[in-house]
Amino acid sequence: MSMTLHQLAAALGAQCTAPEPVQLTCTLRHVSSSPQADAQALVFAESRAALDAALASPAGAVLLTPALAAGLTASQPLLLHAQPRWAFAQAARLLRAPLRATGVHPTAVLGAHVHLGAQVSIGPYAVLGANVSIGDHSHIGAGAVLGDGVRIGADCQIHPRVTLYSGTQIGNRVTLHAGCVLGSDGFGYARHAESGAYLQFPQQGTLVLEDDVEIGANTTIDRGALEETRIERGSKLDNLVHIGHNVRVGRDVVIAAQTGISGSSSVGDGAVLGGQVGVGEHAEIGPQVILGGGAGVLSQKKLRGPGSVFWGRPAQPLREYLKSLAALARLSRRAKE
Amino acid sequence: MSMTLHQLAAALGAQCTAPEPVQLTCTLRHVSSSPQADAQALVFAESRAALDAALASPAGAVLLTPALAAGLTASQPLLLHAQPRWAFAQAARLLRAPLRATGVHPTAVLGAHVHLGAQVSIGPYAVLGANVSIGDHSHIGAGAVLGDGVRIGADCQIHPRVTLYSGTQIGNRVTLHAGCVLGSDGFGYARHAESGAYLQFPQQGTLVLEDDVEIGANTTIDRGALEETRIERGSKLDNLVHIGHNVRVGRDVVIAAQTGISGSSSVGDGAVLGGQVGVGEHAEIGPQVILGGGAGVLSQKKLRGPGSVFWGRPAQPLREYLKSLAALARLSRRAKE
Amino acid sequence: MSMTLHQLAAALGAQCTAPEPVQLTCTLRHVSSSPQADAQALVFAESRAALDAALASPAGAVLLTPALAAGLTASQPLLLHAQPRWAFAQAARLLRAPLRATGVHPTAVLGAHVHLGAQVSIGPYAVLGANVSIGDHSHIGAGAVLGDGVRIGADCQIHPRVTLYSGTQIGNRVTLHAGCVLGSDGFGYARHAESGAYLQFPQQGTLVLEDDVEIGANTTIDRGALEETRIERGSKLDNLVHIGHNVRVGRDVVIAAQTGISGSSSVGDGAVLGGQVGVGEHAEIGPQVILGGGAGVLSQKKLRGPGSVFWGRPAQPLREYLKSLAALARLSRRAKE
Repeated sequence: MSMTLHQLAAALGAQCTAPEPVQLTCTLRHVSSSPQADAQALVFAESRAALDAALASPAGAVLLTPALAAGLTASQPLLLHAQPRWAFAQAARLLRAPLRATGVHPTAVLGAHVHLGAQVSIGPYAVLGANVSIGDHSHIGAGAVLGDGVRIGADCQIHPRVTLYSGTQIGNRVTLHAGCVLGSDGFGYARHAESGAYLQFPQQGTLVLEDDVEIGANTTIDRGALEETRIERGSKLDNLVHIGHNVRVGRDVVIAAQTGISGSSSVGDGAVLGGQVGVGEHAEIGPQVILGGGAGVLSQKKLRGPGSVFWGRPAQPLREYLKSLAALARLSRRAKE
Repeated sequence: MSMTLHQLAAALGAQCTAPEPVQLTCTLRHVSSSPQADAQALVFAESRAALDAALASPAGAVLLTPALAAGLTASQPLLLHAQPRWAFAQAARLLRAPLRATGVHPTAVLGAHVHLGAQVSIGPYAVLGANVSIGDHSHIGAGAVLGDGVRIGADCQIHPRVTLYSGTQIGNRVTLHAGCVLGSDGFGYARHAESGAYLQFPQQGTLVLEDDVEIGANTTIDRGALEETRIERGSKLDNLVHIGHNVRVGRDVVIAAQTGISGSSSVGDGAVLGGQVGVGEHAEIGPQVILGGGAGVLSQKKLRGPGSVFWGRPAQPLREYLKSLAALARLSRRAKE
Repeated sequence: MSMTLHQLAAALGAQCTAPEPVQLTCTLRHVSSSPQADAQALVFAESRAALDAALASPAGAVLLTPALAAGLTASQPLLLHAQPRWAFAQAARLLRAPLRATGVHPTAVLGAHVHLGAQVSIGPYAVLGANVSIGDHSHIGAGAVLGDGVRIGADCQIHPRVTLYSGTQIGNRVTLHAGCVLGSDGFGYARHAESGAYLQFPQQGTLVLEDDVEIGANTTIDRGALEETRIERGSKLDNLVHIGHNVRVGRDVVIAAQTGISGSSSVGDGAVLGGQVGVGEHAEIGPQVILGGGAGVLSQKKLRGPGSVFWGRPAQPLREYLKSLAALARLSRRAKE
């Protein structure tokens, strides 16, 4: 895709200034970092140093805040936006070539009563079970396996080798990265009192991913045991994350790589979980709560307070965690003397 | 599958009571949670609150302990069992429709001298190397890859996209969830004293999974270096677990998600490891030992004592770990004042 | 492959002694542990106990240091090498049967303008996009998916079900274990100040793996956001490791299982990271630094000093970490009394 500077500014809701009026019709084709920019690249700057690099580059235009632009004389056109990082991400999306619909590859195996929307693409060796439904403009990658009754909305991108167990429900505009496994059996067993043997507790619930969810490579999310697991609208999960059965992840939640959430816990809207966080069973992470990388939340624990930061194992309010670290450091130093 | 209440009670070894004798012949078709129950559902209760929900539901029958049933008048039939959770899991298994044998999909690629038992099912695009053997009634999912000489017992369920490296041995009634990789090379290298370069130490041993083992999605288990890695009868591993080379996991062991066990360590029968536990090399976790979530066990360490609980990094006996936490909290509070 | 003792000694640069000259022409076919050795096996010993086991075994020859061999009378031939573990790994490589080139399986799907070197093997159901290039003698496993423009060097072993996103560059003699996902989108989002919604920050950079890199099963490595992620020559990553966007891992680095490195961090040449280590964003691990298992490195942190060991969360110099543990243990004990 390409757009003129003028078109892009309008689409982003950005104010546009250019030393020469003719520059307003210059063509932008992609976003870039400043060191790699060419004359058709849009770059962005949130700091003075980044701005210097941008202005020294051959970039076609620079996206920045009005404050940073104040009093600036530049040879390049400028796009002014209160949230340049957001606008840059928007620009990338606008300029990105849309995925080309390639149709259903002749090697794809489709079960009975599969329903495909308009402009659906299905890659080589993908396998769709019976009664699978795929919404308009969705892409299913090579070697993906979709069990019976899986439903996928419109404009989804399912990368290669994703596995969706039967009955998994996926909303619109969802991205699933390669190798993720969604809807697998949860980890619940009944133990026999005498023999000590384990027998699987029924894992027959469902998994629902709402619109605009994104799931990282090789992440695993289990179906509900008797009820459901649900990832709500707009949440983003990184690679190698584990979500247990019956978990609810609210809206616009961010979960970094290698974090694990045990069965029946919930994460409130807008929460942010760092990498390698561990959450026990039946815990509650409140809305907007922030958990530092590697934090550990005990089973049954409730962490509350919008904007509160918790850290450590077991997780404490940030202030107390830092106090503990400092107290231990002092104690240790004193022992040294 | 469906069973009459009377048949199910007999199969579970449960005592059955019903207000009306005709109810003993009612048909049950599935297990359920109370909120989702219909007239053909079995529900179970281990607490007074769960019992109230069960009795308020339209469930066809309620499974509970004799103690909880004492003096109870209910409109529903009751199944009395000393271990209702165990009996509920049994009922789920009895009522579940057996996997339908679908035969060998025409796209499956079979190497030379593959031996298939009776009623084996092999999904689309599965690839079996030379000299692979699959026992009766086992199911191999779509896109699974089984290397040369892999042996799988009877009544196994191998989900889609599982990879078994050559020579891996799998017992009977084993479940492998999607994306797990079994029998890959262990992580062992010789380092050259002068150049600092690493050369792979030979990873040519085997991996054996005994009967009734269950392995979670995207879990990885390495083959032995020169000898074997072994997961013994009845053990259950959750998603994204890592087991290194030469490890022995005993019988009826439970290992929660994202736990990692380094090379040459052993875990005794009946041990329970929480999520995100890390075990160093050549460590020994004794029989029946319990490791809390996120615990860390140092290389060479031996943890002993049936029923002992260890927690923290490095792992300590639970009592000492809690004492440490409390002492640190006191110290930190005092510093505040 | 088989070699005479004499040939193997020459290839390893080892000194060879034998009680009977005829033994110098005996044939060795494989390496082995002492308990499993037969007359055609090479075993090795680094300790007196291992030596006793080796001498008691029927092994065809024993590899050991000159020091350990001093004054020894043995019935077996001895190979003397200053680094017996390294020489043993070399011997395993020399004696291993080379992978047999099997050609391109008829079910492999090749896009336009794919370039295959000499003696390339491609397994069943592998999918190669347009403009993919594979170097001489490389093997691509069953079900692997290589996106458009992927380049793979010579003598690589790509195990089954590996996924390489488009544009990923792989050097020579690289091993990628089953299920790993390389070149996936990094985890970066712009958040809208008012709505709280997240929009993907562009993840359009590249991923480069240099020569002799080895990657474990189900490991994930993200492409750069705007620039590149790079794993330099000779580095070895274990299973279930996560590497974020824009990370640089230097030469001959070792990273054990389940470790995660967040975006834009770097790891210097020859560093060693234990299992379950977590590294925050924009951190720097210096050359030759050693991080103990489970260590946590804060964002922006720089750890320096060749050979320095850091441990704990947050990571401290080993000495200070041990001091802290000891101080806390004393404090806790005192509270007990």
